[in-house]
Amino acid sequence: MERVMSLPYPPVYLDNAASTALVPEAAAAMAAAWAHPGNASSLHGSGRAARRMLEESRESIARDLGARPSEVIFTGGGTESDNLAVKGIFEARRREDPRRRKIVISAIEHHAVLDPAQWLADEAGAELVVLPVDGHGFVSPDSVRAALEEHAGEVALISVMWANNEVGTVQPIAEIARLGAEAGIPVHSDAVAAVGHLPVDFAASGLSAMTVAAHKFGGPQGTGVLVIGRDVACVPLLHGGGHERDLRSGTPDVASAAGMAAALRTAVAGCDTDSRRVAALRDRLAGVLGAVDGVRINGALPIEPDLALPGVLHVSIDGCEGDSLLMLLDAKGVECSTGSACTAGVAAASHVLLAMGFDTATARGSLRFSLGTGNTEDDVDLVGEVIGEVVDRARAAGLLSAVGAWAGGES
Amino acid sequence: MERVMSLPYPPVYLDNAASTALVPEAAAAMAAAWAHPGNASSLHGSGRAARRMLEESRESIARDLGARPSEVIFTGGGTESDNLAVKGIFEARRREDPRRRKIVISAIEHHAVLDPAQWLADEAGAELVVLPVDGHGFVSPDSVRAALEEHAGEVALISVMWANNEVGTVQPIAEIARLGAEAGIPVHSDAVAAVGHLPVDFAASGLSAMTVAAHKFGGPQGTGVLVIGRDVACVPLLHGGGHERDLRSGTPDVASAAGMAAALRTAVAGCDTDSRRVAALRDRLAGVLGAVDGVRINGALPIEPDLALPGVLHVSIDGCEGDSLLMLLDAKGVECSTGSACTAGVAAASHVLLAMGFDTATARGSLRFSLGTGNTEDDVDLVGEVIGEVVDRARAAGLLSAVGAWAGGES
Repeated sequence: MERVMSLPYPPVYLDNAASTALVPEAAAAMAAAWAHPGNASSLHGSGRAARRMLEESRESIARDLGARPSEVIFTGGGTESDNLAVKGIFEARRREDPRRRKIVISAIEHHAVLDPAQWLADEAGAELVVLPVDGHGFVSPDSVRAALEEHAGEVALISVMWANNEVGTVQPIAEIARLGAEAGIPVHSDAVAAVGHLPVDFAASGLSAMTVAAHKFGGPQGTGVLVIGRDVACVPLLHGGGHERDLRSGTPDVASAAGMAAALRTAVAGCDTDSRRVAALRDRLAGVLGAVDGVRINGALPIEPDLALPGVLHVSIDGCEGDSLLMLLDAKGVECSTGSACTAGVAAASHVLLAMGFDTATARGSLRFSLGTGNTEDDVDLVGEVIGEVVDRARAAGLLSAVGAWAGGES
Repeated sequence: MERVMSLPYPPVYLDNAASTALVPEAAAAMAAAWAHPGNASSLHGSGRAARRMLEESRESIARDLGARPSEVIFTGGGTESDNLAVKGIFEARRREDPRRRKIVISAIEHHAVLDPAQWLADEAGAELVVLPVDGHGFVSPDSVRAALEEHAGEVALISVMWANNEVGTVQPIAEIARLGAEAGIPVHSDAVAAVGHLPVDFAASGLSAMTVAAHKFGGPQGTGVLVIGRDVACVPLLHGGGHERDLRSGTPDVASAAGMAAALRTAVAGCDTDSRRVAALRDRLAGVLGAVDGVRINGALPIEPDLALPGVLHVSIDGCEGDSLLMLLDAKGVECSTGSACTAGVAAASHVLLAMGFDTATARGSLRFSLGTGNTEDDVDLVGEVIGEVVDRARAAGLLSAVGAWAGGES
């Protein structure tokens, strides 16, 4: 009879890059907003109070992102912000000059950037210039420079993420922004994985536009902002009442704005201390996992730990399927992911890992652990207790399925 | 010295059509969702729990709207749902047959329908066929029939709202849907003002698509659904992770979905009783306002009270500016609006009233009171106490500004 091990409850949540728990400060701010009804566009006292709360949230977010309040546009989340930036800036730039059909993106962008860019290529005459990455997930400024030289006058926009959501590699954003600025080309960055976890200063970065999502740093799901310079032309996606500088119509969600502002204040105020603590946990976890035979640590961490997100540990494990590992760990009370939650359940190797030069088998045998402020050393140690057995089982399952495929002639 | 009248606190909120207070059931459902972190796309236990909550919310909303769960697409609110329906269905229909360039809409649609339709006309080769309304705000099915006969084969879609948000007139939606179905043309309806306040059954209506926003019936702002038949082709607006049947990418907002479902359950369960009670308050308010000299009650209420939203009372007051009335009432602790909150602060006469044949002066001298389940007879009686003085002052201000304009040569 197998030893019955008691499962941790709640489970050990090591998937903070997919979604964080709402922090108490955000819940309190939202409850305060709900105490009074009101549409922020209404002219009466309740409407003006709602407007005040919305604008105070905007000011707070702007302060924490190094932006001006008028540069902060509330949206329904990171995907909407990315779509608005990519489609809206592309369209505005092309209207000014129809030769501007090129969109320069990195090969490891989130699908919320890749897919609208691909859609523009399929439907609206755009052409994608895809920047390669090295084996650690870095985009080289030289590749940006080369793309701008080759396609001078034809580039509508550049979009390169601040930090990669799967492997945690932090990009040389300021340098890329500078190259764009010198060429007069707007540069957008999906900073969803970075904000709250690294110092992010919009003004200092030199970017034209930047995407932020609240639920990655303790705020509510379904809310985000696009930070966009006042002089950056952008065609709206949602038309209607003309809210948010006419860039994003729709009744503003005052409570979520307040919740996002509160979560960001908390995250930014604690960023220094928390990042150090979370990075220490990550390093402890790297030690635990690195002790297992056939485990490789990916991304920037092994070579440039200062250019790795503090909370992300991405590993490849020889002879395993990531989904098997994930499910076996889940059964032990440890929650992680095989990559972006947005493509979970899709049995394809991550485009990020393939772009980094991984072969398909290695890419599919990968896991992302993402730690947050709620995690402890005990959480990491639990992974240490179970990982050996989990890997053994996953390898056995992989062998079994390989034998089955060979015997049955399946692929 | 003027008699000091104590203001009611909180103010008497008669602007429920702009935004309602979050009901406790919704707040509780959202708090329950927040008790556990999780991205509904994650494969581990927390992710599956979030997914379960999302799908249970979808099923609950579907049940309350007479739809199938697979027909319910979560969005960031009514404006996004309207944009997705109008642009997405237009684009899909035109791809099937490029002759389909016409969009048939009523003259009194919300800006969230009007503006995307106008944008398609300005940017994407669409042509608008605008259905007139009568003096009470009714769209005639005959006008729909005539439009379909005149433009047979060229109509991409029809969009007519279920009930008008400003004057409360309920449209013959089932008949319009039937005409569309007979001609093989999808019919969308913005049901934002109706859901929760009238029985709304998507299947029985015969519609192809329907827009719903949570914050109009006690749910959170920033969330809504597009109900859309499985066989209705629609091109997405937001590209990315492929959430929501690939129709709307973006991390689902589980808490808001749960809050919307809870609010809708509460609203639908109480709809019969609440609507009668709210309609009685509205009628009491109509009596109070009707007693003032020079006040006219607009919309369907005077002729077909069964085809008027129970909570909306729209009036025109001779010789007054709506904004003056609104501000004077606000100073007395009564909160109402001059029309849609989405265009509040815009000093233009409502397109709805102009389409109903109002002259500009009458249109600008109008107010919307919208009652909800939180209102009482005392609220109505307070309006009765203050309205005489408010109208006198607004008229005096109007005279003064007319004299000023005459004396100063201003317009």
